[in-house]
Amino acid sequence: MGKDAESGEPGEYVAKDYHDPPPAPLIDVEELGKWSFYRAIIAEFIATLLFLYVTVLTVIGYKSQTNPAKNTDAACGGVGILGIAWAFGGMIFILVYCTAGISGGHINPAVTFGLFLARKVSLIRAILYMVAQCLGAICGCGLVKAFQHAYYDEYGGGANELAQGYKKGVGVGAEIIGTFVLVYTVFSATDPKRNARDSHVPVLAPLPIGFAVFMVHLATIPITGTGINPARSFGAAVIYNQHKAWHDHWIFWVGPFVGAAIAAIYYQFVLRASGMKALGSFRSNA
Amino acid sequence: MGKDAESGEPGEYVAKDYHDPPPAPLIDVEELGKWSFYRAIIAEFIATLLFLYVTVLTVIGYKSQTNPAKNTDAACGGVGILGIAWAFGGMIFILVYCTAGISGGHINPAVTFGLFLARKVSLIRAILYMVAQCLGAICGCGLVKAFQHAYYDEYGGGANELAQGYKKGVGVGAEIIGTFVLVYTVFSATDPKRNARDSHVPVLAPLPIGFAVFMVHLATIPITGTGINPARSFGAAVIYNQHKAWHDHWIFWVGPFVGAAIAAIYYQFVLRASGMKALGSFRSNA
Amino acid sequence: MGKDAESGEPGEYVAKDYHDPPPAPLIDVEELGKWSFYRAIIAEFIATLLFLYVTVLTVIGYKSQTNPAKNTDAACGGVGILGIAWAFGGMIFILVYCTAGISGGHINPAVTFGLFLARKVSLIRAILYMVAQCLGAICGCGLVKAFQHAYYDEYGGGANELAQGYKKGVGVGAEIIGTFVLVYTVFSATDPKRNARDSHVPVLAPLPIGFAVFMVHLATIPITGTGINPARSFGAAVIYNQHKAWHDHWIFWVGPFVGAAIAAIYYQFVLRASGMKALGSFRSNA
Amino acid sequence: MGKDAESGEPGEYVAKDYHDPPPAPLIDVEELGKWSFYRAIIAEFIATLLFLYVTVLTVIGYKSQTNPAKNTDAACGGVGILGIAWAFGGMIFILVYCTAGISGGHINPAVTFGLFLARKVSLIRAILYMVAQCLGAICGCGLVKAFQHAYYDEYGGGANELAQGYKKGVGVGAEIIGTFVLVYTVFSATDPKRNARDSHVPVLAPLPIGFAVFMVHLATIPITGTGINPARSFGAAVIYNQHKAWHDHWIFWVGPFVGAAIAAIYYQFVLRASGMKALGSFRSNA
Repeated sequence: MGKDAESGEPGEYVAKDYHDPPPAPLIDVEELGKWSFYRAIIAEFIATLLFLYVTVLTVIGYKSQTNPAKNTDAACGGVGILGIAWAFGGMIFILVYCTAGISGGHINPAVTFGLFLARKVSLIRAILYMVAQCLGAICGCGLVKAFQHAYYDEYGGGANELAQGYKKGVGVGAEIIGTFVLVYTVFSATDPKRNARDSHVPVLAPLPIGFAVFMVHLATIPITGTGINPARSFGAAVIYNQHKAWHDHWIFWVGPFVGAAIAAIYYQFVLRASGMKALGSFRSNA
Repeated sequence: MGKDAESGEPGEYVAKDYHDPPPAPLIDVEELGKWSFYRAIIAEFIATLLFLYVTVLTVIGYKSQTNPAKNTDAACGGVGILGIAWAFGGMIFILVYCTAGISGGHINPAVTFGLFLARKVSLIRAILYMVAQCLGAICGCGLVKAFQHAYYDEYGGGANELAQGYKKGVGVGAEIIGTFVLVYTVFSATDPKRNARDSHVPVLAPLPIGFAVFMVHLATIPITGTGINPARSFGAAVIYNQHKAWHDHWIFWVGPFVGAAIAAIYYQFVLRASGMKALGSFRSNA
Repeated sequence: MGKDAESGEPGEYVAKDYHDPPPAPLIDVEELGKWSFYRAIIAEFIATLLFLYVTVLTVIGYKSQTNPAKNTDAACGGVGILGIAWAFGGMIFILVYCTAGISGGHINPAVTFGLFLARKVSLIRAILYMVAQCLGAICGCGLVKAFQHAYYDEYGGGANELAQGYKKGVGVGAEIIGTFVLVYTVFSATDPKRNARDSHVPVLAPLPIGFAVFMVHLATIPITGTGINPARSFGAAVIYNQHKAWHDHWIFWVGPFVGAAIAAIYYQFVLRASGMKALGSFRSNA
Repeated sequence: MGKDAESGEPGEYVAKDYHDPPPAPLIDVEELGKWSFYRAIIAEFIATLLFLYVTVLTVIGYKSQTNPAKNTDAACGGVGILGIAWAFGGMIFILVYCTAGISGGHINPAVTFGLFLARKVSLIRAILYMVAQCLGAICGCGLVKAFQHAYYDEYGGGANELAQGYKKGVGVGAEIIGTFVLVYTVFSATDPKRNARDSHVPVLAPLPIGFAVFMVHLATIPITGTGINPARSFGAAVIYNQHKAWHDHWIFWVGPFVGAAIAAIYYQFVLRASGMKALGSFRSNA
């Protein structure tokens, strides 16, 4: 069965361009001595800062322009919710494009968590990435508050909250599925086996990842405002710092991490190989 | 026979980059014993589930935000019909990108039907794909109903219906031409001869397929809501389950299948080779 | 000087992948005997038909949904002018993608005219392409009128007219510059010298061509409705058949042809080589 | 340390396709004798002209269509601020695509300045590019004024001004960060080391650069109208020629140049190599 499953994937043994890299160790002391490691952490910090700066500034600017009490002739002013969804998706596209060669282009603790579960990054790298992402998100939101202090608190600070009328379970469910869509796309775009087989997969990698973020925002802005990125939700909650944002805050960590874990399991155990074979290789890695 | 099926997969020969694969057999017993076959069916199920979940959630969320009776200050809130069209097109882009290497990335019984007519997939694979797609669509719509139960039935459940004032013939015609645009793009993107000749064709394959879906939605949402995917229409009809949706339902199977058949004929007999030559080779395959 | 100009382009003499094809003859008798020639004309006909069908249907559908007299709660319904611009640009993207390997993907008499001036296609091919494009456009608009007969004439039939308050010179100027943007992009995307030098040029060819159409529509819809494609304007005028559309109709042939000619001159004499050298080689071709 | 940093990047010493070009000299007398040099300056002039023509025409057209005093039934007519942001980003996408092989595709003095700081272009080329860009921008805005003279002055001429209620420091800060996002993307897209390592980087180069411009416009149109391009702000100010536009004009030179300088420093000293090594090599170049 294992043989059949492999032979069903043509061209693997002939002219193989890429190899499955060995699983990353939990703690890799050697990488701590390299500049490229710290450079990657800096790149994650800067990228998450820019992500939150542009996206939250778009949200606040849109709301300030469409407030009917202040701006009577601009009922349709601003970029619209479609523009907000573009801002989140488009920024992920360009930031993944810019940082893919430096840090892998995570910009999201849920992505880092999913790649850690798949043993693509070491534990120490995963933790430091998440810290850098959360600090970057706080700084990005802080810049928006400094630039838009007249409107920032009034228009919700870009914080994620469960919309009125939805139960907590719905919010968690929406975050789980949304993050699943994103992390599934990330796995598909970075799989070394598919990179060798399908020429169109790696070339477009950052674009579908950005589109996945765009799509999920179209669907779930009415429910949770769309987190699917704990650093994004955490940074906005820290700077906005209101009761409601903190009260719902656990949703935006539990949902994305569960969604990322399901995506990692789906990819490793269902899509990558026969169930038995994958199970065996996963155990031997641990 | 099994050997033939294998040698149809590119990269096996050395001199020429791609070969026209031999036509898929109607019933391929050997593929039933491979994990990669069941994996492909699972991937179609999950992809169609995610497709319906994101798109119908976008439709319901848009309508709930722009209801003037409930939301007086947001006449232009929501993502707009342009956002809905993006949701359908963008999801097809990322799902084709993610599943192209696993199942071929159909996510649509009309696409499966067109590729079956062109002898790219076996009969048994075509049938099981369609069943998986319909089940996935039902589950995706079920999730939306569970998450949005306050609004789902009120706002039409994302079901396809013929708009008031249009005749049945117009609805069928719009579905035929819309599906023709989609399946013609799919054939263009996956043609092995063009893949070898034009370097830009395969690299971008999932993107123009997604754009084709986006375009058709811009044009025909006012007429039928745009089906061009029987699984999408069927899943929404099952969960919504109202008389009007079922009454028009045949349109969303007949139209897409006819459109896909015309696209297959146009591609095989007109574009691929001289009329006589194509006719000859098609006969010898049957 | 000629030598310097050439040596300023590194890598041309080393590892040259492509050659400048010889200029197309004015009349190529041999191509008249090939099926691929007639196949190309059929592909241009079908592509222009689909182009007009989707775009004009989007225009009519948008206007019927946003008529405040009939639809009081949908001031922001419809896809908007942004959606209309996307429809034109996006259709050109997918149709160029689908027909590039069959006919070169012109779908526009102005593009055919520009490529004829640059000696990329023969005279007989250019004329037959233009005839096929105009017939396709008429059929595409005819389908829209058949499907939307209740609204087609009422909402202007998608015909190009000079907006009130603009002089004829402004309309012609807007069409000239708009077509220049499009045909300049087409030349850039299909230049064999640049294809060899810049790996990113050919891969994305249909996408920037589609975007060029999208951009010009954003800018000039308020002035002329945006033609930049005589077949599109002609097809809509024939089916709509009102005085105003015919009265302004010459603008949508003169403007695009002049713009395409300027783009061909700019590309051949300024960008491709030193002025003297280009002049010499162009003469020797004639 | 230097060795470790290098060895952290796999595949650099094996099968290296590209070399880091030597730094451009401050004054390169030889390039002054080449036609390709003047061709590049002409291409920058034409590209900036087209950029301003399309984008400012979109801005004026949008405002003329949505003026409630003149157009009562079209509160949501026009392409919206989202359409304006697309116009700026989309034009940069196609113009970078078209001119990348001719001039490098700067179309922006801040990009030229950043690439000069990184020693990618000579001083004389940088100055002549900036002059050509500013002249092109003036001509592009002049065309818009000629075509739209009834509306040009009334709707602000597309000039950049600090919005009411924002301090000068906020405007400068928004321009700095916005230009940083753009120039950082440009550096990422054109880095020769990354081009060799990541196959997806060069193929998509013009697309993320265009998206960076799109994203920044979504975020900062409410604050400064978004400059991030001194030629764009200068050209609009010259043609519009009102007190307010000139009063704020320094913001749109200081901000973009500072942002570009920070991006150059970040890229050269943090991302490209270990701090010490980069410092050494930069000194030896000077």
